[in-house]
Amino acid sequence: MPKKTGRMNILYAQSGGVTAVINATAWAVIDAARKTSGRLGRVLVGRDGIVGVLEERLIDTAKITSAARARLRMTPAGAFGSCRFKLGPPETDPARYRRILEVFEAHGIGYFFYNGGGDSQDTAQKIASFSNAEGYPLKVIGLPKTIDNDLYGTDFSPGYGSVAKYIAVSTLEASLDVASMSSTSTKVFILEVMGRHAGWIAAASALGQRRPDDPPHLILFPERVFDPEDFIARVRQTVDSVGFCVVVASEGIRGANGRFIAEGSGTDAFGHAQLGGVAPALAGLIGTRLGYKHHWAAADYLQRAARHLASKTDFEAAVAVGRAAVRLAREGRGEVMVTLERLPGAPPHFRTGSTPLEEVANRERTLPDDFMRADGYGINRRGRLYLAPLIAGEAYPPYRAGVPDYLRLNPTFVKKRLPPFVAR
Amino acid sequence: MPKKTGRMNILYAQSGGVTAVINATAWAVIDAARKTSGRLGRVLVGRDGIVGVLEERLIDTAKITSAARARLRMTPAGAFGSCRFKLGPPETDPARYRRILEVFEAHGIGYFFYNGGGDSQDTAQKIASFSNAEGYPLKVIGLPKTIDNDLYGTDFSPGYGSVAKYIAVSTLEASLDVASMSSTSTKVFILEVMGRHAGWIAAASALGQRRPDDPPHLILFPERVFDPEDFIARVRQTVDSVGFCVVVASEGIRGANGRFIAEGSGTDAFGHAQLGGVAPALAGLIGTRLGYKHHWAAADYLQRAARHLASKTDFEAAVAVGRAAVRLAREGRGEVMVTLERLPGAPPHFRTGSTPLEEVANRERTLPDDFMRADGYGINRRGRLYLAPLIAGEAYPPYRAGVPDYLRLNPTFVKKRLPPFVAR
Repeated sequence: MPKKTGRMNILYAQSGGVTAVINATAWAVIDAARKTSGRLGRVLVGRDGIVGVLEERLIDTAKITSAARARLRMTPAGAFGSCRFKLGPPETDPARYRRILEVFEAHGIGYFFYNGGGDSQDTAQKIASFSNAEGYPLKVIGLPKTIDNDLYGTDFSPGYGSVAKYIAVSTLEASLDVASMSSTSTKVFILEVMGRHAGWIAAASALGQRRPDDPPHLILFPERVFDPEDFIARVRQTVDSVGFCVVVASEGIRGANGRFIAEGSGTDAFGHAQLGGVAPALAGLIGTRLGYKHHWAAADYLQRAARHLASKTDFEAAVAVGRAAVRLAREGRGEVMVTLERLPGAPPHFRTGSTPLEEVANRERTLPDDFMRADGYGINRRGRLYLAPLIAGEAYPPYRAGVPDYLRLNPTFVKKRLPPFVAR
Repeated sequence: MPKKTGRMNILYAQSGGVTAVINATAWAVIDAARKTSGRLGRVLVGRDGIVGVLEERLIDTAKITSAARARLRMTPAGAFGSCRFKLGPPETDPARYRRILEVFEAHGIGYFFYNGGGDSQDTAQKIASFSNAEGYPLKVIGLPKTIDNDLYGTDFSPGYGSVAKYIAVSTLEASLDVASMSSTSTKVFILEVMGRHAGWIAAASALGQRRPDDPPHLILFPERVFDPEDFIARVRQTVDSVGFCVVVASEGIRGANGRFIAEGSGTDAFGHAQLGGVAPALAGLIGTRLGYKHHWAAADYLQRAARHLASKTDFEAAVAVGRAAVRLAREGRGEVMVTLERLPGAPPHFRTGSTPLEEVANRERTLPDDFMRADGYGINRRGRLYLAPLIAGEAYPPYRAGVPDYLRLNPTFVKKRLPPFVAR
């Protein structure tokens, strides 16, 4: 085990589904560490997250040019690669934990920054406990990231504000389309959005509303049991009174039997059911039962990668989280996750804080009841007040030849110092 | 029949599917007509297109405030309403044609501006012929508009450049997402785009490519017969060599039997088959045959209403078309459609021209063979050179509280002067 002397390096890794602004956090970590006047070492990044740590595929950020760093800041998704890979508990999978510490030791890592959602914070906490038990001097800092906004212990998570803005704007635009055509064409439009267990993304679709009858007329949250008869009655009623009906449906809505409305055929690497197809399922229901002409859209990855429409608040929060992690490292803090705390009034709408990792791991924060409209098909003023600042402001990327000038990183890897890892 | 003396009014109407910039054309017509120093009369607009003309529901644009006009310019979809309603030939439906002329006469209409695609230009031509035959002094001017870019006689059509930009950017962003996750998660991503008979929209997905292996790897055009075995082989090959595969599929692709891959249950008002669901159909095929983890998205109305990402070229073309129509009216021209002619080099990329309506009506322009890659799954340099200027530049709308400050027009109607029309 190394003595904790001199400058220890930072290992940063992205984990789980990517977002429009997670690279802004990566950029901020790299940038802030460079500016610590040598009190921190280099920033290495795990290729494809923790998988790259296990395989000792570590990217040397010192080799990224300043021009590439500037573009990294404005590029969506995971420039270094992310992964869906959950470590088991150390008791059942000690070899992987030991390997991680070997890699850390071989590369002088004293700080582990893990940028992810609830599952990832759980992994971070386990690595912290294991390194403590082994006597390896490691400071573990969690950096929040999730489009789902379901991370516990922080007022909101970077990544959510941008997908929220995308869904608010897309719902508004598609609704104007439906409104203009409804006299002779489409009467019902359904937009399927992400959100397995939490309705935060669906809720954001309401942020373009200005008047009581404005679309979306019906939002289907996973926090509510989907009742087909009630839904059909409300669609009919809306078409009768407004002339058309816009529905926004979370991918994760379930019927009274607990089954997803659109059950996929497989499961993801975390063992969650892989969903998709709520919108066509609802469209089929409406066609059969009401006979209205309908259209549907499923935004899927378009929504979480939509850097072109990033929220300025969200972008700034992503940057702030990266800087805060470096500050915590300098202060010698560990086993904490950076948090965002709400500030009232004008921008900035937040400041950073921290919370113990063990408080965060494996907890989930769904859309609160008291943010929802009484009928369960929309949000109320309280919900709107929480959500609105998160989509405030635009943070456009630079464009070249009509498309954003995003970075496609050609990384330089640190020389390997260990034999290959063979998982048993 | 009125004598053609004094200032005759303009009747402007939108027709068919809406676009991100059709209201910019409407704005330009209203603005340019106001500036003709009284040589043209007022601009009236048919509510819901020609349907509003038949029902004498005419919007008085003189009552739109200057603030609302400025917002109209930046608002997607049809602010006055559009329609899918095709007039039959005058021989079989003379009552409707007569009614249109009665409404025109009652409101001093001397100019009919019809803003639409191929079907609408056909309607415009029929109205022109009928009014000629009846001796009613009417100048009919077609204004091009279609997201499909399939209108004959013009180098491109307003509406296409913005959907093209949206699809280029969305494909680029979603591809970065897939690339970052592909080591442990999604291997194949499918984006379904609009395009019933023409692959122009699908072609635009290639405009984010910079290097040979860049996504999208396979574009499925309706101009090519879909061969499942060849497709499956190419998906496998791409995943093997690149690590993941991004597919962009036109909604209108068909198999060797001539049937749509995703045949919908109904038909639209023009008698076209209503499509949807190519992406889930292809996803099912990939899942069954290759077993890769896959995701799919269907952009549907999100793509054609995406004013937040409008192309500057497209926006300026939409404005130019409106101004040109007013200029033609002042010159006493009729039975023509405004066209866009390509200018080489730097912006502006076009100038306006005109072509006889009868040259345009009921013709369709598909993606030329010589714009396609030899294997039929992409576009070549020639195609790229044609497409790139159409997505050049950004034309962002103003935002308020995080969402675009779009106009929701509360129109003032002209007082009716005729009894209701009863179609027989």
